[in-house]
Amino acid sequence: MQLYGYWRSSASYRVRIALHLKALDFEYKAVHLIKDGGEQKSADYGQLNPAQLVPTLVDGDLQLNQSLAIIEYLDSLSGPRLLPEDAKQAAIVRMLAYDMACDLQPIVNLRILQYVSGTLEAGDEGRSAWIKHWVDKAFTAFESRLQTYAGTYCVGDQVTLADLCLVPQVYNAQRFGVDLTPYPTLMAVHDRLQQLPAFAKARPEAQPDAVV
Amino acid sequence: MQLYGYWRSSASYRVRIALHLKALDFEYKAVHLIKDGGEQKSADYGQLNPAQLVPTLVDGDLQLNQSLAIIEYLDSLSGPRLLPEDAKQAAIVRMLAYDMACDLQPIVNLRILQYVSGTLEAGDEGRSAWIKHWVDKAFTAFESRLQTYAGTYCVGDQVTLADLCLVPQVYNAQRFGVDLTPYPTLMAVHDRLQQLPAFAKARPEAQPDAVV
Repeated sequence: MQLYGYWRSSASYRVRIALHLKALDFEYKAVHLIKDGGEQKSADYGQLNPAQLVPTLVDGDLQLNQSLAIIEYLDSLSGPRLLPEDAKQAAIVRMLAYDMACDLQPIVNLRILQYVSGTLEAGDEGRSAWIKHWVDKAFTAFESRLQTYAGTYCVGDQVTLADLCLVPQVYNAQRFGVDLTPYPTLMAVHDRLQQLPAFAKARPEAQPDAVV
Repeated sequence: MQLYGYWRSSASYRVRIALHLKALDFEYKAVHLIKDGGEQKSADYGQLNPAQLVPTLVDGDLQLNQSLAIIEYLDSLSGPRLLPEDAKQAAIVRMLAYDMACDLQPIVNLRILQYVSGTLEAGDEGRSAWIKHWVDKAFTAFESRLQTYAGTYCVGDQVTLADLCLVPQVYNAQRFGVDLTPYPTLMAVHDRLQQLPAFAKARPEAQPDAVV
């Protein structure tokens, strides 16, 4: 398998965690999202993913974009299940995962921030306010949901898809200096997840294309 | 089951299509997203969904937000399967669904448009440019993917989760006057889906809270 990703992309980060949790071998292909206007916009990468976004996973004749679709696919292959067998429990896991992956990540990713700060001329200050606004909305709701569902991790005591979606969003929020002290349960879950080897291996700064 | 939704919300629209395809009885509870600053921000609704977004599905003791989590849950209950049994086929369906549900819908929904036109002072013109920009990006990629995967519908000849995610985004794009002639395959699939009774019943203008 080949994973096309970028060290700081939170959607790539999720997939790396899944691959390491499942102990699947993969070749990491870095796609530099900034250099030369963004390698994701090249004709070659466009063949692989016309949406010009990372990640993309290639497994034989299967070319998959969308990190959540990739993770559900990997979950069907092997290793510890990231989605519970029980339909109600799986629904709760997906709900928490999508709170991060649908209602936060797409709003604060690179292309949106470029549009807000550049095209809309909001500048660095407007960009920071945008990030803080949406992180606070999403994390406030998530903190509240964790009161109901969390154990050691987001949903009970097993690592699930929800955990894979949470950790990269905390990384992103910290990178942009958002104060996370209002979210103690969320941060406690995050800190426990960071102790796990698969999460450590997947960290942005541990990737070959990291610039630190 | 009770579905809390709003006639024009594309995430609510997806879930209505699923409920009708599966012929499941449900009580529709309208949550007015505009009136009095938005009923989704009321304390009562916040109990149900602290993210203050629609839809929410209540099924006995299960309270589920996130339309995609709801649809996967409904898919486990009964009726025609919206996700294929085969893991690779399911991954392709999810990929196309998330192209609409993760990389388009969250970027052009009400709260984002209010922030862009209001807080960022982009006004009506900036809002229209924002919508057109992101619809064009998403639909261009989707049109390209349909060359590979489409049959009668988005993926082959069965109705899948991808179709439930496409139709509401076309409704939304049309509502804001985006020119859709560059996407002939996408629109042909859309038009075939609109012939199906479940899709007709789920249309925004057919809902009790519609203002037309």
